[in-house]
Amino acid sequence: MRSLLSSDLAAVPAEVTERLLRAKRVMTVCHENPDADALGSSLGVALALEHLGARVNAVCADPVPDMYDFMPQVQRFRKAPEPDLDPDLIVVHDCGDLERIGAILLEQAELFERVPILNIDHHVSNPGFGVTAWVDAESAATCEQITLLLPWLGLGFDAVGGDIAQNLAAGLVFDTANFAHSNTTPRTLRVASELVAAGAELPMIARRIYRTKPNEQLRLFGRVLARLESSADGLLAWSVVNDEDYRVAGADAQMSEGLIDLLAQSASAQVAILFKDLGELVRVSVRTRDGGVDATQLTGAFGGGGHARAAGATVERPLAEAQPLVLGLARRLLDELPAR
Amino acid sequence: MRSLLSSDLAAVPAEVTERLLRAKRVMTVCHENPDADALGSSLGVALALEHLGARVNAVCADPVPDMYDFMPQVQRFRKAPEPDLDPDLIVVHDCGDLERIGAILLEQAELFERVPILNIDHHVSNPGFGVTAWVDAESAATCEQITLLLPWLGLGFDAVGGDIAQNLAAGLVFDTANFAHSNTTPRTLRVASELVAAGAELPMIARRIYRTKPNEQLRLFGRVLARLESSADGLLAWSVVNDEDYRVAGADAQMSEGLIDLLAQSASAQVAILFKDLGELVRVSVRTRDGGVDATQLTGAFGGGGHARAAGATVERPLAEAQPLVLGLARRLLDELPAR
Repeated sequence: MRSLLSSDLAAVPAEVTERLLRAKRVMTVCHENPDADALGSSLGVALALEHLGARVNAVCADPVPDMYDFMPQVQRFRKAPEPDLDPDLIVVHDCGDLERIGAILLEQAELFERVPILNIDHHVSNPGFGVTAWVDAESAATCEQITLLLPWLGLGFDAVGGDIAQNLAAGLVFDTANFAHSNTTPRTLRVASELVAAGAELPMIARRIYRTKPNEQLRLFGRVLARLESSADGLLAWSVVNDEDYRVAGADAQMSEGLIDLLAQSASAQVAILFKDLGELVRVSVRTRDGGVDATQLTGAFGGGGHARAAGATVERPLAEAQPLVLGLARRLLDELPAR
Repeated sequence: MRSLLSSDLAAVPAEVTERLLRAKRVMTVCHENPDADALGSSLGVALALEHLGARVNAVCADPVPDMYDFMPQVQRFRKAPEPDLDPDLIVVHDCGDLERIGAILLEQAELFERVPILNIDHHVSNPGFGVTAWVDAESAATCEQITLLLPWLGLGFDAVGGDIAQNLAAGLVFDTANFAHSNTTPRTLRVASELVAAGAELPMIARRIYRTKPNEQLRLFGRVLARLESSADGLLAWSVVNDEDYRVAGADAQMSEGLIDLLAQSASAQVAILFKDLGELVRVSVRTRDGGVDATQLTGAFGGGGHARAAGATVERPLAEAQPLVLGLARRLLDELPAR
């Protein structure tokens, strides 16, 4: 604990530490469709409490995606707790509300009614469910909170041979887009420093999360990028992904995830648009630059929504009609921007 | 200076601080073909010394590439010092040897013979030129060293309205591949924490350095990715870039930079190969995974070199002959690996 400040550690409520130190039989839970922050925070607490002598089941409603098989002990996740666990504490990680844990909320309804719930999360919208809620929206990731918690449990970050540090770093890298989202604070970087000192391997984690793709997806991305088009002034850039792209690349529908962010790498574009040609309708994804067009003004016109910099809409027309409509409005919004 | 430890600051030799504090007229220099670490460290020192009242010229033999125009005051770089500067100190940044500063070494030979040189660098191979040399191979970037230096000059990191912090963070992000190279130490992350606290914008820096490409380059990458091929077992993945790709994409020869790293994102590949078809010869770039084939064993067979994970060679045969030879040897090297 060389890099963390005592003011960082002061963020942990005493009640959280007390409940964890008292627990003997624990179920740790994270959200359905788990990501690295959900898995990493839940595993981090599970391994820490086991190290302290508790019996722990790590439970997740959905299977762990293959891409996370680099996370130490991630194969421990179960769809349900062992029948004889009889938990005296349930710790819920990275869930903006309790329903986010998915099917197990109903399947284990009796447990969730009877056993005290400790809620550890960083979503500002979290209503504070559970007997104890530690919601810290200043944290870039729930894994940032767990890192601050470990010293209070009397554990070094290298406990369990660095497995805890590796899991927590994975969550941190995931939720900050490798320290490139604006949620990365000075404290986030101090937390990362501590985890690296304890053996977390940022190069491997970044490669596995951000730079590993099936060949079919690389080919799909390639086909769509190769056809990138742009307006004469470069401010508008777009491309189309269609059935033939998926077929020729051997890719499935989920593999276009991330494609719009590649188009948005265009140095000239203020507005980047991906058209997914679905036959009778078109799914439109939009990214815009800081200080420029509000993406929701574009998607809102077609009944869609999103954020100012990232938004989407479904246009219920074939591509040949939808594309000129969307590009025409994007052009108008660009032209209406005050000159800079 | 909340995140840095006193042991971090102890890395700065007293003589470096003393020389900088005494200087009245300073020329800061960085290497030819400058990158963000060269520019950022040189600008960081220039702005700091100006803040302390010195007259400073920042000199670089080559023009600053457009991609760095986000770095505050980067337009200050000159090809030569002002004729009446009469420097009493030359500070050389990020140069593994003095020749790395390029043409100005000859053009300003009289200055380099007469004026004391302070050498600040992080390359392990640096021979220690200059009257004072601070070579710290533990630093991920020369900008990491400059960050440690500022407190000794009595400056907060937010001096000059955060411009210093932004420049130093740019160098840090560049030389660590956004904290994803193994040179990223706990201290590197503490340094980053300090710079973010002083106003450095990691999201903008990461976007400008790593996620901004000309449309022509995006199309070129797309064409080559779309043709990604792989062996039946997936362990070998490759593609070819040729004249037609550059022509159709509107790209120039430098724009294939970074393409091999995209191919190396293949989830299945242990060995990724890019063939650049140059007509009578083929340029081969290779990337391999940790614990697998040594890339130099492959490139060495064709008279090339490099590192175990990244290497290259020029095969003096047309593609139709070169490609089967290289793929054949890569296959043999894969088959010879001990089973895991």
